Amino acid sequence: MPKTPRQIKLGAFLMQTGHHIAAWRLPETHADDGQSFKRFAELAKKAEAAKFDTIFFADSVGVRNEDPTSLHRTARSDHFEPLTLLSALSVVTERIGLIATVSTSFNEPFNVARKFASLDHLSGGRAGWNLVTSSGNGEAHNFNRSEHLQHGLRYERAGEFYDVVTGLWDSWDDDAFLRDKESGIYHDPNKLHVLGYQGEHFQVRGPLNVARPPQGWPVVVQAGASEAGKELAARTAEVIFVAHQTFGEAQDFYRDIKGRLARYGRHPDDLKVMPGIFPVVGRTQAEAEDKFGRLQDLIHPDVGLSLLSNMIGGVDLSGYPIDGPVPELPETNGGKSRQRLLLDLARRDNLTIRDLYLRIAGARGHQQVVGSVTQVADQLQQWFEEEGADGFNIMSPSLPSGLEDFIELVLPELRRRGLFRTEYEGKTLRENLGLRRPVSRYAGAKVAAQAA
Amino acid sequence: MPKTPRQIKLGAFLMQTGHHIAAWRLPETHADDGQSFKRFAELAKKAEAAKFDTIFFADSVGVRNEDPTSLHRTARSDHFEPLTLLSALSVVTERIGLIATVSTSFNEPFNVARKFASLDHLSGGRAGWNLVTSSGNGEAHNFNRSEHLQHGLRYERAGEFYDVVTGLWDSWDDDAFLRDKESGIYHDPNKLHVLGYQGEHFQVRGPLNVARPPQGWPVVVQAGASEAGKELAARTAEVIFVAHQTFGEAQDFYRDIKGRLARYGRHPDDLKVMPGIFPVVGRTQAEAEDKFGRLQDLIHPDVGLSLLSNMIGGVDLSGYPIDGPVPELPETNGGKSRQRLLLDLARRDNLTIRDLYLRIAGARGHQQVVGSVTQVADQLQQWFEEEGADGFNIMSPSLPSGLEDFIELVLPELRRRGLFRTEYEGKTLRENLGLRRPVSRYAGAKVAAQAA
Repeated sequence: MPKTPRQIKLGAFLMQTGHHIAAWRLPETHADDGQSFKRFAELAKKAEAAKFDTIFFADSVGVRNEDPTSLHRTARSDHFEPLTLLSALSVVTERIGLIATVSTSFNEPFNVARKFASLDHLSGGRAGWNLVTSSGNGEAHNFNRSEHLQHGLRYERAGEFYDVVTGLWDSWDDDAFLRDKESGIYHDPNKLHVLGYQGEHFQVRGPLNVARPPQGWPVVVQAGASEAGKELAARTAEVIFVAHQTFGEAQDFYRDIKGRLARYGRHPDDLKVMPGIFPVVGRTQAEAEDKFGRLQDLIHPDVGLSLLSNMIGGVDLSGYPIDGPVPELPETNGGKSRQRLLLDLARRDNLTIRDLYLRIAGARGHQQVVGSVTQVADQLQQWFEEEGADGFNIMSPSLPSGLEDFIELVLPELRRRGLFRTEYEGKTLRENLGLRRPVSRYAGAKVAAQAA
Repeated sequence: MPKTPRQIKLGAFLMQTGHHIAAWRLPETHADDGQSFKRFAELAKKAEAAKFDTIFFADSVGVRNEDPTSLHRTARSDHFEPLTLLSALSVVTERIGLIATVSTSFNEPFNVARKFASLDHLSGGRAGWNLVTSSGNGEAHNFNRSEHLQHGLRYERAGEFYDVVTGLWDSWDDDAFLRDKESGIYHDPNKLHVLGYQGEHFQVRGPLNVARPPQGWPVVVQAGASEAGKELAARTAEVIFVAHQTFGEAQDFYRDIKGRLARYGRHPDDLKVMPGIFPVVGRTQAEAEDKFGRLQDLIHPDVGLSLLSNMIGGVDLSGYPIDGPVPELPETNGGKSRQRLLLDLARRDNLTIRDLYLRIAGARGHQQVVGSVTQVADQLQQWFEEEGADGFNIMSPSLPSGLEDFIELVLPELRRRGLFRTEYEGKTLRENLGLRRPVSRYAGAKVAAQAA
């Protein structure tokens, strides 16, 4: 089989009405997307027709914003649960990957292993799990806790959680089920494995009551960028959705994380780095800026302030002058890397509080590009070719219009440059991303042969 | 609106290859059903075309049988997880109800409230939750526990779990979402309610991050028949799937449970009693017996013994003569009512161990009818008309053939007698079952008005 030239991997990061916090107020968005399966079905089919690798849903086990001054001004509080939504979307799509975020802090590994295995079977091998540890106390309050687990502890739990989940996915060998009606033997008992996991956080016996997933394991995705997050990713992740502001940051991160893989016996190609990107694209720079301006003008200051506060770990900023500098902040138990990223950004570009919330209102700390087709394509190409990224998670400012812009304007240019596929290479998400199918931990002889 | 005459409610209790433990060995069943979405889609569409109220999936968070002498001879160890499967099935159906079993012992109420709310939105108001407390230690071993919670304690937990879940479903008033683009007000903050639940087992703040379900609350189903189970059902259940062997038992149960409702301010019509029934139907009695015989002949004794052992709380019967009497058994922490039911059955009919496992190999303790169309229809009619049942949960011996038999042979006879619908009455599961839409606990004035 001839080796395909390396090409950009693309995720469509979907969120009702789009990623810009005020997108729901645009006349052309459907403000009730969060309750319309039909519209998510249309988005998924559109992304598949454009040959995106995957659609992706973030998640939070609680309303994302707990500030009563602004919650009622945002469209983030009523939405489908990702695993149920993606299970339904698996029926109306055939090739695109289906990635759902599920927290290791507020779930049990047996349930998570099972649901993703089930989705992988439903979809013929297109499931992916974005493993997060969650970052806010608000979610903890919905799960019997007065505050969230301490940062280090929740990463310990996540590591064990991953080991249990992947162990359970290997419960049955790929060829365990014989289903021989004549002899009455349904499966080969030697091809069933009881996990018997005994850890600090989990004791899980197994086996899973689902056959080994078509992909062996659904694709494991992560987003953490703290030291603990990077180390867990180096050991376990196959895709990273990461947030960077500059090419330099992206390159540093890319080299750092790829360099960590060897320690775990992994090859650099075993992990695809896919930074989020928030593209506002126009036929000209002016058209793009106009589109962006329309969105920015719709942000109510209360919404901007509380979005910012939420993203820096819940620190209340309402006592500071909105057009004054971003103050030094206490360290919190929230998402550490994100807080750091935003403060660095404010310092670097000398931003006021208002400037900073305007800067993150769409991209939430991810790279934001407002420009012409050439400008957007140039940037993707540079990051992709110069060790900044293996692909991108596209955060459309508004939906469906922003996704349509990207598909109709940017993709033809990327294809002209030979940077993006015209047809899917494989049938499973793993095949399309160019990731190896994991060999079962119980396939002793086979593992030894492959390692030799 | 004219009042519809009371008619039988019907559920299609689906399980891969069918309910008989040996059904997978029949030449006409597809032994790999457990991994085929396509075939479940066909079954769901068939049940919907026949105007069944609902399809229903049981569940277990672990393999259902842990006996190594027989596990490999049964088709019960690889199957879809019900919520992901039903989410997918919601796309290929339009009117039929979608009921999934989810355990209160091995889940968190926030996650369960959310997934069912999501399924209710995906399906346009067709979701139902079969609330179970689970009965085996095998499941506990997959969730950090060396043994299952004690029977009373798990019912206490279930009661709180229900209160949290239904409280979360009321987080948003039905008309909370304004989505007014002009003013930028997405929801009315006065129509958002924070639960703030503080119980013995759960502390859950809320609100849920999903709008109130189309049905208000997805339909709540239960199956427990112990004293604790009946009391919980009287307070909370809207449908009961129950197992009876005789009409007398069914009638006693029906009167008992309906009689308990008033204590909770509920009307007898607020709870539909739907016993499971395992119909082996033929054009003649002889044809039915022949069909049943084909299935019974395919049961390996190891499979029969361990099915029985599993259903009486895990007691090992291998030391007793298979053709001798069923011994007295120690009380276990498993499903108490089921153990009692089977022992009573063995005593009443003077059954040997082999007789007993042959008796339950299909129906697992539910009513089994092997007979002609008239015989089956007569029995359903008697139970329905004489306070034995409001409907039935049909446990087809084999799939799809057993369901097809019921649809093609029994339904025309029930319709001829005016006992079953020819068209759905409503759009939601609740409307079809004839259940009231719950008024939100926060709709103070409205509740008072309705009660008056």
